[in-house]
Amino acid sequence: MMIVMKSSASEAEIEAVIDRIQSVGAVAHPSRGEEVTVIGAIGDREHVARLGLEGAPGVQQVVPILKPYKLASKQMRSDERSVFDIGGARIGGEHFALIAGPCTVESREQTVGTAHLVKEAGATMFRGGAYKPRTSPYAFHGLGEAGLRLLAEAKAETGLPIVTELMDVRDLEPVLEVADVIQVGARNMQNYTLLTELGRAGRPVLLKRGLSATLEELLMAAEYILKEGNPHVLLCERGIRTFETAYRFTLDLTAIPVLKELSHLPVVVDPSHAAGRRALVEPLSLAAAAAGADGIIVEVHPNPAEAVCDGPQAIVGDDFAAYAQRVEQAAAVAGKVFSTV
Amino acid sequence: MMIVMKSSASEAEIEAVIDRIQSVGAVAHPSRGEEVTVIGAIGDREHVARLGLEGAPGVQQVVPILKPYKLASKQMRSDERSVFDIGGARIGGEHFALIAGPCTVESREQTVGTAHLVKEAGATMFRGGAYKPRTSPYAFHGLGEAGLRLLAEAKAETGLPIVTELMDVRDLEPVLEVADVIQVGARNMQNYTLLTELGRAGRPVLLKRGLSATLEELLMAAEYILKEGNPHVLLCERGIRTFETAYRFTLDLTAIPVLKELSHLPVVVDPSHAAGRRALVEPLSLAAAAAGADGIIVEVHPNPAEAVCDGPQAIVGDDFAAYAQRVEQAAAVAGKVFSTV
Amino acid sequence: MMIVMKSSASEAEIEAVIDRIQSVGAVAHPSRGEEVTVIGAIGDREHVARLGLEGAPGVQQVVPILKPYKLASKQMRSDERSVFDIGGARIGGEHFALIAGPCTVESREQTVGTAHLVKEAGATMFRGGAYKPRTSPYAFHGLGEAGLRLLAEAKAETGLPIVTELMDVRDLEPVLEVADVIQVGARNMQNYTLLTELGRAGRPVLLKRGLSATLEELLMAAEYILKEGNPHVLLCERGIRTFETAYRFTLDLTAIPVLKELSHLPVVVDPSHAAGRRALVEPLSLAAAAAGADGIIVEVHPNPAEAVCDGPQAIVGDDFAAYAQRVEQAAAVAGKVFSTV
Amino acid sequence: MMIVMKSSASEAEIEAVIDRIQSVGAVAHPSRGEEVTVIGAIGDREHVARLGLEGAPGVQQVVPILKPYKLASKQMRSDERSVFDIGGARIGGEHFALIAGPCTVESREQTVGTAHLVKEAGATMFRGGAYKPRTSPYAFHGLGEAGLRLLAEAKAETGLPIVTELMDVRDLEPVLEVADVIQVGARNMQNYTLLTELGRAGRPVLLKRGLSATLEELLMAAEYILKEGNPHVLLCERGIRTFETAYRFTLDLTAIPVLKELSHLPVVVDPSHAAGRRALVEPLSLAAAAAGADGIIVEVHPNPAEAVCDGPQAIVGDDFAAYAQRVEQAAAVAGKVFSTV
Repeated sequence: MMIVMKSSASEAEIEAVIDRIQSVGAVAHPSRGEEVTVIGAIGDREHVARLGLEGAPGVQQVVPILKPYKLASKQMRSDERSVFDIGGARIGGEHFALIAGPCTVESREQTVGTAHLVKEAGATMFRGGAYKPRTSPYAFHGLGEAGLRLLAEAKAETGLPIVTELMDVRDLEPVLEVADVIQVGARNMQNYTLLTELGRAGRPVLLKRGLSATLEELLMAAEYILKEGNPHVLLCERGIRTFETAYRFTLDLTAIPVLKELSHLPVVVDPSHAAGRRALVEPLSLAAAAAGADGIIVEVHPNPAEAVCDGPQAIVGDDFAAYAQRVEQAAAVAGKVFSTV
Repeated sequence: MMIVMKSSASEAEIEAVIDRIQSVGAVAHPSRGEEVTVIGAIGDREHVARLGLEGAPGVQQVVPILKPYKLASKQMRSDERSVFDIGGARIGGEHFALIAGPCTVESREQTVGTAHLVKEAGATMFRGGAYKPRTSPYAFHGLGEAGLRLLAEAKAETGLPIVTELMDVRDLEPVLEVADVIQVGARNMQNYTLLTELGRAGRPVLLKRGLSATLEELLMAAEYILKEGNPHVLLCERGIRTFETAYRFTLDLTAIPVLKELSHLPVVVDPSHAAGRRALVEPLSLAAAAAGADGIIVEVHPNPAEAVCDGPQAIVGDDFAAYAQRVEQAAAVAGKVFSTV
Repeated sequence: MMIVMKSSASEAEIEAVIDRIQSVGAVAHPSRGEEVTVIGAIGDREHVARLGLEGAPGVQQVVPILKPYKLASKQMRSDERSVFDIGGARIGGEHFALIAGPCTVESREQTVGTAHLVKEAGATMFRGGAYKPRTSPYAFHGLGEAGLRLLAEAKAETGLPIVTELMDVRDLEPVLEVADVIQVGARNMQNYTLLTELGRAGRPVLLKRGLSATLEELLMAAEYILKEGNPHVLLCERGIRTFETAYRFTLDLTAIPVLKELSHLPVVVDPSHAAGRRALVEPLSLAAAAAGADGIIVEVHPNPAEAVCDGPQAIVGDDFAAYAQRVEQAAAVAGKVFSTV
Repeated sequence: MMIVMKSSASEAEIEAVIDRIQSVGAVAHPSRGEEVTVIGAIGDREHVARLGLEGAPGVQQVVPILKPYKLASKQMRSDERSVFDIGGARIGGEHFALIAGPCTVESREQTVGTAHLVKEAGATMFRGGAYKPRTSPYAFHGLGEAGLRLLAEAKAETGLPIVTELMDVRDLEPVLEVADVIQVGARNMQNYTLLTELGRAGRPVLLKRGLSATLEELLMAAEYILKEGNPHVLLCERGIRTFETAYRFTLDLTAIPVLKELSHLPVVVDPSHAAGRRALVEPLSLAAAAAGADGIIVEVHPNPAEAVCDGPQAIVGDDFAAYAQRVEQAAAVAGKVFSTV
């Protein structure tokens, strides 16, 4: 951490900062320039983090140097990338996972039918929501445990690993019975209670970036899970909130190469929720794959016009095989191959 | 809801939209212009909300007309403003509440001492955190139940109503024993599990706006609480995330008059977390009060340099009385008077 | 345009709105719902645009229906895409243009050398700045007319069409002597004086999206040029400003398919300025090409460490041929072929 | 400037950075921590700014320490605030300027009438646009020189100094004949051609912050003017672009205290363009004044329903005196008094 002093800082103010640094057991390295003095604070990350020197007399700015996360950082793995085996499917490194399925589990036919459809088209895992976070308290909130049972059937029939969302820690047990990957939604990215419990549960987690979370905050949220001993976190970019109103969210594809610089964890992209409209899903999927994503999680529905939820953004079932083929080509440009169970 | 058709929409596509509207029991009102056709869908709010016509063939845009919240809307109260009595203190209408206290409950002396200090300066309620959401899993997370006991002492000694945060529904019971107002943090604004439980608990809730939540989403989150039968929700603006990096968050003071146009619920402003630095807290507090806020929730610490958490943004205890006096003047410009127990 | 009345609007307020609509020569179509009345205003776009009903008594919201631009809209071309021939190179439709060169023209060797290098690697046009907009008044502002002469040499030697920026209308004449495409920088996107003069000059324009310009505003800026009779506008996405600080700008690749829905004009992407760092340029270029961009404008320098300007984001000359090859593969996924002179 | 090396940086990479720093005539101060090495580069601001070490081998991050502006900075004035005398009216320090008038000059009666009206209510200066930047090429663009003559009449009759906008450097001469303050609009904040000419013209400038300009960029734009020898720059906050859609722009009132920390220049707020609706203008004005703004520039129209431009946001003429009185009270809370000619 570097503490930049004001040009008007007195010698006493500089000394007070040096004393404060030493009081937490860190070492102070002052550099006195002609205009300003900068003081480096070198020592244990957690101690240094508690210095609280922002706004102290004579202090202009406090500049963190070390990243505030450890386990999520690339250095932890000596610059190697993590590759996870999830129910027989690999993700990370050169393995690309296509995770597909309906927004919400609605019925046996819709669920199992879609699972077969995506499996035949080459998908790696099956997604479907039994518990749905909704902005409106008046909207449909999912089938709950009945939905989980339908997902279990889809898995039994197709062998595809299951990705499904958990919102309430009190539902953890039934979700653990069927989920190969537990999804944390964007609105819960900083629900620390939920993150901690998932860290303890040990099951792989797909962690969606919050609508206005920085990449550092996403990695800090991952750190909550990793710290409890669960190493299997998939980072998921799903669009951020910006001023643009011509579409729903701004898919941040720069996040892909930047997260790979910062972390060893696989990076997945959700084009469906960012786009909000079917016509945008394919171009965004191709872009994500070409930019080097480790996977895509996408919504598909046999008959979107009848979907209970998010129909407008679902790829039509009949178009999915052609879509998957083009995604495969784009992933190949980035040196990746589709992973299958 | 208005459905705007593409200029290239065929008659069959227009008819299909009209049929879809009628199929959910709503009435379709088409207006055929020279360039485009617009179709109004008039009927029950929830039915109309499930039309799912975005992206349907020939549809260019779907424009909602009715607000998606009911109980939070101003119409519910025939344009009257809600005034709440909380432990003898009033908030709303002409009653301005100054809610003050430390970020975190640290010790008996710090807690009870600060409560006396703010009471003498004219504060309306006492705030203090026992459970602290922190971006880093390595940071201090609060004293928990021991902290709640200290808040109970502060209340017993000063008579000030207590505002404290709840993060985990499993801690609801002990929090209900001491809190007059339960705070929901910005990161939990869309933690629907928590909102629903607080709606059922019936205790007044101070609901902080998420970092990138629109005002409509804030009101939808309030609706989750109101819908369970709890009418006492205080809306809290605490800064939104923008591109500016010269300070921590952008305090959105336009939210004050706009929320008052949309809703009857009182509007509180938290200048401390937005500012992140003490020097900015007073100007932002004066601005919030002059703009017509119904209250301010502010951090104060007897000795911020020693604070466990957020010291740089806390007002110094010795300066608090003068601060409170200036806020009172600014509130008077907006026609408000300080409320006391 | 739809005018949504407040639920509390009186009959007289509704009538006043209808009168106002009729007074500008438009036709009013009221739809009276149970909760609110919505009034359609149908008529000449410019007349309707001057209604000024926002905030009028009883009016809750004014919803525009027609796009405010005409010549830039897709309807103008009956849904066909524009293909431009620029100095023998085609762009638009299936033709992909790779526009490459240094940020700034520095010397004869650097300029002509780079032009040969990019031509051999398959580039379509050569870019280079003689006039440089800089945030700091103390920074290097380009070689000016001497720079233009070097660009003319590069063109004479390689045959590549030249793309170069104009900032000051008083420099238009010398720029017209060398430029095949005149670039308008992001900061000048709403410099209406400049746009109007370029519309009159008739030379193709590459119009960069402002840092916080909506896609509608970008198309309105294009409309300023088109309206003067110049049909050759290339729209350029170059990154928008968001809250994220882990990289320089957020490249908005969703803009590609959305601009293609709204407009017939070709869409070019500038990954260099968005990224700010070389390591991010290739993944973003591949993403842009796979998403269906009609071209990429990218910075390359024979020796970036010695570059006068923006060296950190320039692709190293020796790496450019391999880069171009991968971009060609990604463009092929979107059904495009590289265009050459 | 501090250069933070990657933890994996080799000794040779560290040495290369030190060499590069020394090659521009600066001094390198390396601090070797256990995890990372940080190298301070101390020397002439302009030389250091050209290091271009971002993305160099082994470099993780480059952290600027000195502000990139000089003349705009507070240090230049030894922490004193600038007070300007403009046509007999003072602004800055304890002097608060209320600048009022119509968006656009429409007619003699409207212009001179409004000037009398605002003068009687205590306004300090008169504003009115003769040249109007408009998003649409089809909108009204102002009366031009005829409008300037009407402003001259208003000045002759009331003695109020005139604030009016310049968009095109070719119109500078006629504008100089009437304007006491030349306004630069938000869209032109980084029109460096215009800024440089205004620096040379020497007339006071009201510089509006761009929609997505950081405060540092606003100060850099001011620096362009100051550097040419014109010391009279008024900084103007007028709302920034954020994700919120419930109102037009987000008025950034935190900018007031932060600009005052960074710069000696007066800070003015434009609540009208941020709000877009009359009902929001007064609360935002009171907030700005209470937060310590040095002035407000606000739109007023004798009959907004008939206004050619921006009627919905104009304060109604008859309400202006009461408005001015309340703004005066709010300014008093911040220790300011209205300035008059």
